[in-house]
Amino acid sequence: MENSVKRELPDELMNKLDYKPFETVDFGNPEIQRVAPKVRATTGKNKLVDSLEKAVTDNVKDGMTISFHHHFREGDYVFNMVMRIIIDHGYKDLTLAPSSLTNTMNDITIEAIEKGVVTNITSSGMRGTLGDAVSHGALENPVIFRSHGGRARAIEEGNIKIDVAFLGVPNSDEMGNANGMDGETAFGSLGYALMDAKYADKVVLITDNIVDYPNTPASIEQTQVDYVVKVDKVGDPDKIGSGATRFTKDPKELKIAQTVNNVIVHSPYFKDGFSFQTGSGGAALAVTRFLRQSMIDNGITASFALGGITKPTIDLLEEGLVKKVMDVQDFDKGAAQSMKSNRDQQEISATWYADPANKGAMVDKLDVVILSALEIDTDYNVNVMSGSDGVIRGAVGGHQDAATAKLTIISVPLVRGRIATVVPEVTTNVTPGDSVDVLVTEVGIAINPKRQDLIDALQDMPGVPVYTIEELQQMAEAKVGKPEPLEYTDRTVAMVEYRDGTIIDTIKEIKD
Amino acid sequence: MENSVKRELPDELMNKLDYKPFETVDFGNPEIQRVAPKVRATTGKNKLVDSLEKAVTDNVKDGMTISFHHHFREGDYVFNMVMRIIIDHGYKDLTLAPSSLTNTMNDITIEAIEKGVVTNITSSGMRGTLGDAVSHGALENPVIFRSHGGRARAIEEGNIKIDVAFLGVPNSDEMGNANGMDGETAFGSLGYALMDAKYADKVVLITDNIVDYPNTPASIEQTQVDYVVKVDKVGDPDKIGSGATRFTKDPKELKIAQTVNNVIVHSPYFKDGFSFQTGSGGAALAVTRFLRQSMIDNGITASFALGGITKPTIDLLEEGLVKKVMDVQDFDKGAAQSMKSNRDQQEISATWYADPANKGAMVDKLDVVILSALEIDTDYNVNVMSGSDGVIRGAVGGHQDAATAKLTIISVPLVRGRIATVVPEVTTNVTPGDSVDVLVTEVGIAINPKRQDLIDALQDMPGVPVYTIEELQQMAEAKVGKPEPLEYTDRTVAMVEYRDGTIIDTIKEIKD
Repeated sequence: MENSVKRELPDELMNKLDYKPFETVDFGNPEIQRVAPKVRATTGKNKLVDSLEKAVTDNVKDGMTISFHHHFREGDYVFNMVMRIIIDHGYKDLTLAPSSLTNTMNDITIEAIEKGVVTNITSSGMRGTLGDAVSHGALENPVIFRSHGGRARAIEEGNIKIDVAFLGVPNSDEMGNANGMDGETAFGSLGYALMDAKYADKVVLITDNIVDYPNTPASIEQTQVDYVVKVDKVGDPDKIGSGATRFTKDPKELKIAQTVNNVIVHSPYFKDGFSFQTGSGGAALAVTRFLRQSMIDNGITASFALGGITKPTIDLLEEGLVKKVMDVQDFDKGAAQSMKSNRDQQEISATWYADPANKGAMVDKLDVVILSALEIDTDYNVNVMSGSDGVIRGAVGGHQDAATAKLTIISVPLVRGRIATVVPEVTTNVTPGDSVDVLVTEVGIAINPKRQDLIDALQDMPGVPVYTIEELQQMAEAKVGKPEPLEYTDRTVAMVEYRDGTIIDTIKEIKD
Repeated sequence: MENSVKRELPDELMNKLDYKPFETVDFGNPEIQRVAPKVRATTGKNKLVDSLEKAVTDNVKDGMTISFHHHFREGDYVFNMVMRIIIDHGYKDLTLAPSSLTNTMNDITIEAIEKGVVTNITSSGMRGTLGDAVSHGALENPVIFRSHGGRARAIEEGNIKIDVAFLGVPNSDEMGNANGMDGETAFGSLGYALMDAKYADKVVLITDNIVDYPNTPASIEQTQVDYVVKVDKVGDPDKIGSGATRFTKDPKELKIAQTVNNVIVHSPYFKDGFSFQTGSGGAALAVTRFLRQSMIDNGITASFALGGITKPTIDLLEEGLVKKVMDVQDFDKGAAQSMKSNRDQQEISATWYADPANKGAMVDKLDVVILSALEIDTDYNVNVMSGSDGVIRGAVGGHQDAATAKLTIISVPLVRGRIATVVPEVTTNVTPGDSVDVLVTEVGIAINPKRQDLIDALQDMPGVPVYTIEELQQMAEAKVGKPEPLEYTDRTVAMVEYRDGTIIDTIKEIKD
């Protein structure tokens, strides 16, 4: 079967997994029966255990779904601690359902796959050796990639049923009241983990910092927690800011950032009370700096900044340029550490952030979003999942979710090294072109033809040439040439859900 | 059938309603499948409606269960506004499932009962004309009385399935982000209403104060809310503190309060880091003042104060004598207004407060609680529901829940007017004697014989004579004589659930 973005989908797998092909970015207003966990009443029980091993072996059984959050990002210690025990105990056929997988989780995940411990994975993304292994067919069943909002939806609808959640926290009392914002290993918002805490049958908190009862604020509440495990160290907060969240000094990226800012300022959305999400891509981060100056110059303040949050966004909050920071995760130590003292840096869960299947997510109210891309094609479809070599090396993240904003800007260099970014057809379609409005590159911009209002508003910006996206694609191709077509086997190694749970694309096994 | 506190229960009704008789205060550790609401995705919909009528008629259907909170207590306007529309539209067979019913709700509830609009009620309690009407058989089906923790459990287990919740709030943005702590009609904690917001299929917020989006902190989140209705005024915060929450100047009550304080101070629980709940009864409130002085004199601070919160408790927080106030509702304007500025005045939901069926409620950690009573009998069973005339005039409240504390003190005068408080057998058994430890009256105390440790600790307090509870009952009887036995019909007008959902007692129709 083919979906509405012309991706051929494997019939057998689609039927077996009961999937529908992607049709539209419009979620509509369906009625959805939520699910709920099975809860063991724990009155009078001591939740505090010294042995992580006991917390694992008392709860995990073959075939179960276990989950983790990735708020520590590259500084995470918890995933490796738990998976070590799980592998050593010889569990089989587990489904891994973390909010995402970072590089620090790769080696042990590959080991778990090779030993048959993990046979299913759902994640926002994967990179490095794990992405490579999966792309070469290492995992028994296809990975299901979901956006942050899509994961929240899938948990709420019961498509992801978490049996045991292992959640690292920088503080907890003996009953499991915990937050992400206090303690030496604070990472700020617990946004993604709040879904696991609420919906998993069993919740195991892992912390290096037992505090007095009752611990407040309690982003995770004792009513949700079965065990609290004390370990030496849960993570390295200095590594929250590594990975995909570096600041740019690249002149080309700065040029792009400046143009992005121009697009925002000249758009109809740049007015008092507007809202924005800048994300964590290299150039996208720099936009915040330019935007700050434009807001000051024009006497404009924003009602909220959304998403994964960086210190520069917190600076805007503290300057009064942004009234609220709606924070689902923190991308650096600065943003992580400011949450406890900034009352207007509001922690939000993944469902509040981006779930299409609730009574309204923050992204529905978002004016402007700047998103990165590995590739964007001439239909404005965006790939943030696989390289031009077909290998998995990215994450859906909040990409599909935030792209529903009124003004969605994709900011990319025309080419990266010898690889075109603007292409005739994306290797993997993650975010449909229907939800993308403007492409910004270092040579100029392209505006989605369906947005005549933006064409009118943006066509005469000084120093910012407007091209068709086909022209930008041709320029890229002129620089780096046409790549050889990729060769895949017939085997599907990953399915990419759109945020509504339909399949927008699949990823095939690399032939090499 | 008879339950373990020797109450004869009506077999037919017990079977029809699928109830089990009360057996034990020990909830154990059962596994419970939670339920979840059916949610209508509202992406892009405008939730803000000017017409409360439309919010009612678009959502309410005959036979549905509708709910309200009672955080405005005697200052509530919302209940009357909504019920007026419901009655005028001629709805039939509704179940009313508020967190409680205050006197200001009586007239219209009686009207709704008389017109067949309301045929079922579940509530924490009822008083005045409504209690009288129900006691005389006005309602078609028996009222189900539940504690605050029991209501939370019943909602989570699906025994109360709320179709539409009408929740008054002192602020909300256009998407339904709301809290109870800000605005002219602030009442503080939204504790009970948080259950309705989370579990009702449809949630209608009613407010007099639409604020900028996004509104934070959001005790109720936009992800939970279907409609936001703007009205002139949702309540009168000056009347939060009326009803059952007056301060005492009665020398007898002050004597009792002083004795309660003596009991606490001489108990093994009065040590650094202890916790307490003082409740809202007349004498109980005064305990806070004596306790304050004892804490200062002994250099002792409390880890937390729990429950319905009054300004004197907030004063302890601000003085540093109490580290955290865990606040499920506010009993006066002072406590209501301080929540927004006191980070350590933590709003807690009814399930976190008192639900026996979750992974641990605050009451499980409670050291000392002072509770009031209409009657206490020689088995230490407590009645807070019906008068000695058999008429309903009270509420379970958190009584059953908090009575699970390590030291449960019932503070009452021996007699009230010509009516004995200490009696051979309570008119209605609400809180089983197994969970009650000490009775404090103005003439002396009685200690539950099963608590030999307390007898040892408290028997030699200067100026506080220790009696058997039979002796106190005899003294009461000597003062006011033996009452005539009550006459009832065979009809059951109310069932009183214990917090675990078993039936601890029933209330019969008054014969007169």
